Amino acid sequence: MIYESIGSSSAEWAGKSYPAIRETAEADGSLLVVPVGSVEQHGHHLPVATDTILVDAVVHGGSEAAGEDLPILVTPPVWSGFSPHHLPLGGTLSLELEHLKAVLEDVALTGVENGFDAVCFVNGHGGNASLIDAVVSTVGRSTDAEVLGTTYFSLATDEIETLRESETGGMAHGGEYETSLMLHLRPDLVAETEVRRGTPGDEHYEWSDVDLLHGGPLSVYRGFDEYSETGAIGAPELASAEKGARIYDVVTAELAALLVAIHEHNA
Amino acid sequence: MIYESIGSSSAEWAGKSYPAIRETAEADGSLLVVPVGSVEQHGHHLPVATDTILVDAVVHGGSEAAGEDLPILVTPPVWSGFSPHHLPLGGTLSLELEHLKAVLEDVALTGVENGFDAVCFVNGHGGNASLIDAVVSTVGRSTDAEVLGTTYFSLATDEIETLRESETGGMAHGGEYETSLMLHLRPDLVAETEVRRGTPGDEHYEWSDVDLLHGGPLSVYRGFDEYSETGAIGAPELASAEKGARIYDVVTAELAALLVAIHEHNA
Amino acid sequence: MIYESIGSSSAEWAGKSYPAIRETAEADGSLLVVPVGSVEQHGHHLPVATDTILVDAVVHGGSEAAGEDLPILVTPPVWSGFSPHHLPLGGTLSLELEHLKAVLEDVALTGVENGFDAVCFVNGHGGNASLIDAVVSTVGRSTDAEVLGTTYFSLATDEIETLRESETGGMAHGGEYETSLMLHLRPDLVAETEVRRGTPGDEHYEWSDVDLLHGGPLSVYRGFDEYSETGAIGAPELASAEKGARIYDVVTAELAALLVAIHEHNA
Amino acid sequence: MIYESIGSSSAEWAGKSYPAIRETAEADGSLLVVPVGSVEQHGHHLPVATDTILVDAVVHGGSEAAGEDLPILVTPPVWSGFSPHHLPLGGTLSLELEHLKAVLEDVALTGVENGFDAVCFVNGHGGNASLIDAVVSTVGRSTDAEVLGTTYFSLATDEIETLRESETGGMAHGGEYETSLMLHLRPDLVAETEVRRGTPGDEHYEWSDVDLLHGGPLSVYRGFDEYSETGAIGAPELASAEKGARIYDVVTAELAALLVAIHEHNA
Amino acid sequence: MIYESIGSSSAEWAGKSYPAIRETAEADGSLLVVPVGSVEQHGHHLPVATDTILVDAVVHGGSEAAGEDLPILVTPPVWSGFSPHHLPLGGTLSLELEHLKAVLEDVALTGVENGFDAVCFVNGHGGNASLIDAVVSTVGRSTDAEVLGTTYFSLATDEIETLRESETGGMAHGGEYETSLMLHLRPDLVAETEVRRGTPGDEHYEWSDVDLLHGGPLSVYRGFDEYSETGAIGAPELASAEKGARIYDVVTAELAALLVAIHEHNA
Amino acid sequence: MIYESIGSSSAEWAGKSYPAIRETAEADGSLLVVPVGSVEQHGHHLPVATDTILVDAVVHGGSEAAGEDLPILVTPPVWSGFSPHHLPLGGTLSLELEHLKAVLEDVALTGVENGFDAVCFVNGHGGNASLIDAVVSTVGRSTDAEVLGTTYFSLATDEIETLRESETGGMAHGGEYETSLMLHLRPDLVAETEVRRGTPGDEHYEWSDVDLLHGGPLSVYRGFDEYSETGAIGAPELASAEKGARIYDVVTAELAALLVAIHEHNA
Repeated sequence: MIYESIGSSSAEWAGKSYPAIRETAEADGSLLVVPVGSVEQHGHHLPVATDTILVDAVVHGGSEAAGEDLPILVTPPVWSGFSPHHLPLGGTLSLELEHLKAVLEDVALTGVENGFDAVCFVNGHGGNASLIDAVVSTVGRSTDAEVLGTTYFSLATDEIETLRESETGGMAHGGEYETSLMLHLRPDLVAETEVRRGTPGDEHYEWSDVDLLHGGPLSVYRGFDEYSETGAIGAPELASAEKGARIYDVVTAELAALLVAIHEHNA
Repeated sequence: MIYESIGSSSAEWAGKSYPAIRETAEADGSLLVVPVGSVEQHGHHLPVATDTILVDAVVHGGSEAAGEDLPILVTPPVWSGFSPHHLPLGGTLSLELEHLKAVLEDVALTGVENGFDAVCFVNGHGGNASLIDAVVSTVGRSTDAEVLGTTYFSLATDEIETLRESETGGMAHGGEYETSLMLHLRPDLVAETEVRRGTPGDEHYEWSDVDLLHGGPLSVYRGFDEYSETGAIGAPELASAEKGARIYDVVTAELAALLVAIHEHNA
Repeated sequence: MIYESIGSSSAEWAGKSYPAIRETAEADGSLLVVPVGSVEQHGHHLPVATDTILVDAVVHGGSEAAGEDLPILVTPPVWSGFSPHHLPLGGTLSLELEHLKAVLEDVALTGVENGFDAVCFVNGHGGNASLIDAVVSTVGRSTDAEVLGTTYFSLATDEIETLRESETGGMAHGGEYETSLMLHLRPDLVAETEVRRGTPGDEHYEWSDVDLLHGGPLSVYRGFDEYSETGAIGAPELASAEKGARIYDVVTAELAALLVAIHEHNA
Repeated sequence: MIYESIGSSSAEWAGKSYPAIRETAEADGSLLVVPVGSVEQHGHHLPVATDTILVDAVVHGGSEAAGEDLPILVTPPVWSGFSPHHLPLGGTLSLELEHLKAVLEDVALTGVENGFDAVCFVNGHGGNASLIDAVVSTVGRSTDAEVLGTTYFSLATDEIETLRESETGGMAHGGEYETSLMLHLRPDLVAETEVRRGTPGDEHYEWSDVDLLHGGPLSVYRGFDEYSETGAIGAPELASAEKGARIYDVVTAELAALLVAIHEHNA
Repeated sequence: MIYESIGSSSAEWAGKSYPAIRETAEADGSLLVVPVGSVEQHGHHLPVATDTILVDAVVHGGSEAAGEDLPILVTPPVWSGFSPHHLPLGGTLSLELEHLKAVLEDVALTGVENGFDAVCFVNGHGGNASLIDAVVSTVGRSTDAEVLGTTYFSLATDEIETLRESETGGMAHGGEYETSLMLHLRPDLVAETEVRRGTPGDEHYEWSDVDLLHGGPLSVYRGFDEYSETGAIGAPELASAEKGARIYDVVTAELAALLVAIHEHNA
Repeated sequence: MIYESIGSSSAEWAGKSYPAIRETAEADGSLLVVPVGSVEQHGHHLPVATDTILVDAVVHGGSEAAGEDLPILVTPPVWSGFSPHHLPLGGTLSLELEHLKAVLEDVALTGVENGFDAVCFVNGHGGNASLIDAVVSTVGRSTDAEVLGTTYFSLATDEIETLRESETGGMAHGGEYETSLMLHLRPDLVAETEVRRGTPGDEHYEWSDVDLLHGGPLSVYRGFDEYSETGAIGAPELASAEKGARIYDVVTAELAALLVAIHEHNA
């Protein structure tokens, strides 16, 4: 029940009154952050809202690390992502691509109307990533505010590479990276008895993505039921809460640096 | 930060793994509930997420009152509503009507794919109400599941009428009804020093809506900045946490009866 | 053949030349009325255009009662409504919801371009009602003219309640209300030998609509072939031409009062 | 007020009950005709519904001439056409092109669902003509019924050429052809004192259309206010009711022959 | 491989740098030409790109004949046409009608942004012709530039009539006209051993089109596999390279005259 | 004039008759390749069709290197890309994002209808890259064929890195990479006297893309007129035809390997 924790961070749009929002928006170098997640199957051990939980946590963590005095506001996470490839397994609520595009455009454009100097999408679901890039262009054409977008697990990859224990492929959907973060942030939602290695099929092309940290030049469409028996891919058995805490620190620090840079660039 | 409280109710879709969701969906008379709110200005004393907070609370309250053994799941609230008339004051994130329609259709249709026998939208924002009705038809044509929709403050209006102290017009946007519920559920988010009577203009036609409990036969479009100086309308000064608790009990009981009826109708 | 009677009322847009239309539009407090009906099955005893015939008659009756000197013009009725739930029985021509929305927006917006101060949709088909409400918002955002909408059988319901002989449920689709009006206005199109009570299924929820005069808080989607053997619901056998005349007088008088109020509000 | 004359022809869909419509639709070689007009300025002497009045009359005349025993039904005329080039003068209600396309597709497809073997659009407005052709393709792909389309003034042009007194250009918008038909069919709606020659500008390219009877290979977009002071083009002063009667006879006979051919082709 | 010949004509947009394009666009009476073809089956003897090859050649021929000093630029041909009726035979790449419409609008509108005084679509595929007409209107409403459209084989039809050897019907899809042009322009792509008379079915209505030179008043939708065994219709066996050269000269001369007229009209 | 060189490669869809296309499509492991380019300003020294010329050349080179006996066909390049950020400088023809999406979906889906086992988009324009990824998903959901996508300059980046002379940022829009390829493939279209270093502004964030070979985690929207005086970015002065030949060999070899892998994977 999300109604219980709305407003727990000082940067949360949702918990403020409109005069407070306008005040921040009108400050110099003001920045609106739009977290985008998904609700989709994440194997037997993780809840379906994993991507939304993680991106919401990382964005608020980054925003706090950037400093509470910066004029940054964070919208509620867009939890409805683009996940058609997960539908066959169940547990997934997915928008059509053009509908998610429209939501992101509307949220960003009605948000910046308040006077923000910049808006940055922060994405937490691989299946949304290319759309986020595209929406940066369509929103960018429609506003004078600066428009940016990123996916949190593409940040600070060099440092995180040093933290991993798995080989390439182990930090994939529901693997070492996401499971560690969940063990750190919401261990109560991790079914540890269900943690099982998700074997990526030998169906992969060598050119295609196999890991959150390693994108390849080739995109391939394939239903997740063809990839994995459990719905997860990678090495969740190598995950730990401690590793999650370190990943969280590295990523939020990097995101904080980015948010500060955007603020300064537009101040 | 909504990530902190996801999964706190046993009926929450978001906090479950996909096998658990499928199990509920495949039970006899299973029911998916989609809460729909808004993020829009609610005067100086209430947070912009008021509609989302309230509908989320009422839906989970109703679901719990219906009985935890019933096969009911609740999606995360769709927090992005249709609120163009609130944009001029600020604090509002609004979707275009057709985009909200698309989101509701996609969420409901990918949700029922899991095997639900029925899906019910529960709305918490007046500006969404007619769209909810319309979407019941468009979703209804596209699935064999039974499709229903309601707005929570249209339930149990006779009983709530007995609880009110304000005259007609006092239970409008940010007035006695909503402020009481917020004082009961999230008093920390109510700026009590900012509670002021919102004077509805004499701009009203006698045929048009003036109160959450009293719909009229006439719809009129008007920006909220023409109605009210504060952004709220009605009598929030008559609100109290105790009244909010009673409203909450009445409405969740009525919603529970409806959910049970839907379950039994489709079992 | 509608070509024979176009222009028979002094308020008809269709029968005028463009200079005459502009003259009215430019007058103080000018008002454009857009009737919206449907072409859908109405049981064995009524023609499929019943909703269009009735809304067209009521709107012109109301306009005449408001006074011929008021600057009011009435477009031809939009006869293509949203009636997917009637398609299985036959006789129905239905638009997709978004297409009807687009038609209403285009007609209203190109109409007010002539200089009208207000535009009011008057609807005659239950299935269109929520869309009319929604379109009031989308058109309202796109023009400086005042935008309003209503459904004629939601007007003057207290008085009509005193005229009825049927119990709740008797004034539903093709029942006592509509059949009486048709017997008054176009008795030649009523197949009196086919008048049969339409039994509403016990499929109804107690929260849902069962009568033109009594809306409930719950919307449910259901094909009309599930409701009724004949396609009609209610008590057409209690209809009479005399009752139709009285209903017509009551409703047109109320609509006239509304049109005058809109005119004065914008003059 | 169109409600007064609905049902005056035996081929009118609007005035029938649904069982009667299904009976015709299920007959061998059944044909649905969809007349398409416009509501747009037609100079000072003709009403804005001229195109709708004429196509409705011609279609019912053609249908009657084809024989009342043929299984032909005619929908109400789609009176909302595509007339952006007429908007500047006033009196015009125009749909966006894609919205008119959607209306025609929905009307035709929900109509043929009743069991028709063929559907034929008959158009009465030059600005709709190319869209009618295009919609024949899009509807044709979506149904097994045969799909056809024509514009009535492109029929029997050789014979009508012998009836004209004007030179090429005289049978243009609101000119000799349309004014004659109106004088024959609805003389009460013609303001004879306002009949004035509409001078087509010397803005014309030799390759472009200048007359209802003579299409050229070139389309040019131009607002009507650039063409003509009155809004009409051509020689309405050469029009007469007698000529209108002869044009009507020739065109309805040709249309009847076409309808019979379609019926026989699909029987 | 089209990359080899881009830039071979002095009027080609594609081969120029942007400063050169702006210079031409800013000249007096500047004209942008957008050729539109298709990729669709053309029988066993012609390549699927026939329409694109021919319209590209005719447009550049016309442009050169108009004079290299005129400020005319030609975009690359839009090769993706509207050809659903050809899909069953194979070899066809077809856009949905509304998608082709959008492409033409975007290309024309971003093109004229450079400063052109006029834009003219020149079409080479019968199935696109009505859409071209319609797009002239939609683009025309959105720009101050003059907007025109034509289909090349509707030009100079009187002269070409004198060149033909076939009867009406022989100059249809892949018949005497197109095969002659291809034998003149790209004989290497004509499989002469596969040239066979395509028998148009006796399925034709007398009112419908049967020849590129003779349009009729009736549109009918029919898949090409119902018309013809080979996919072609007409008399390709009467084609010759010499006749193709003469057709080419006549058509490019006429198109040149049209382009000059547009230039002068807008200079 | 592209009509002159259509059909010059044995893998070209455009130059074939439909029976030949079907034969290839029905072979085992058949693959359809859709090149996607753009027409947009490329500085003063390169033609606006550079992206289309290069992707067309690379795709045909890759296809030839894969072996002429493989069942691979290449559609004409989609030359209309998504380039809104280039419009201010001129020379650009750009589609709206959703329109390009629709074109790619229609081309791919009507193409695979012929019987292909796989379809691969090969993109040549950075601004299209994220859309290509997204379209892989939307097309993938709509067909049983395997759907893939790549951008040619993301292939073999390690090897090309060894060929470069510029620092990071030198292989950007119209820089060392593209100019070298153009000097190798179409030197006649390169204005060597106009080759000037394009200075990327210090407006860059350290997280954003600066080079075709080095993607960063951040997307930023910015018009090209803010980046660069000439419209190009990077080091075209380090380009050479010889380097272009080596880049071409490396990239076509890598693409060939990918095409063979797709063929084998689906055979």
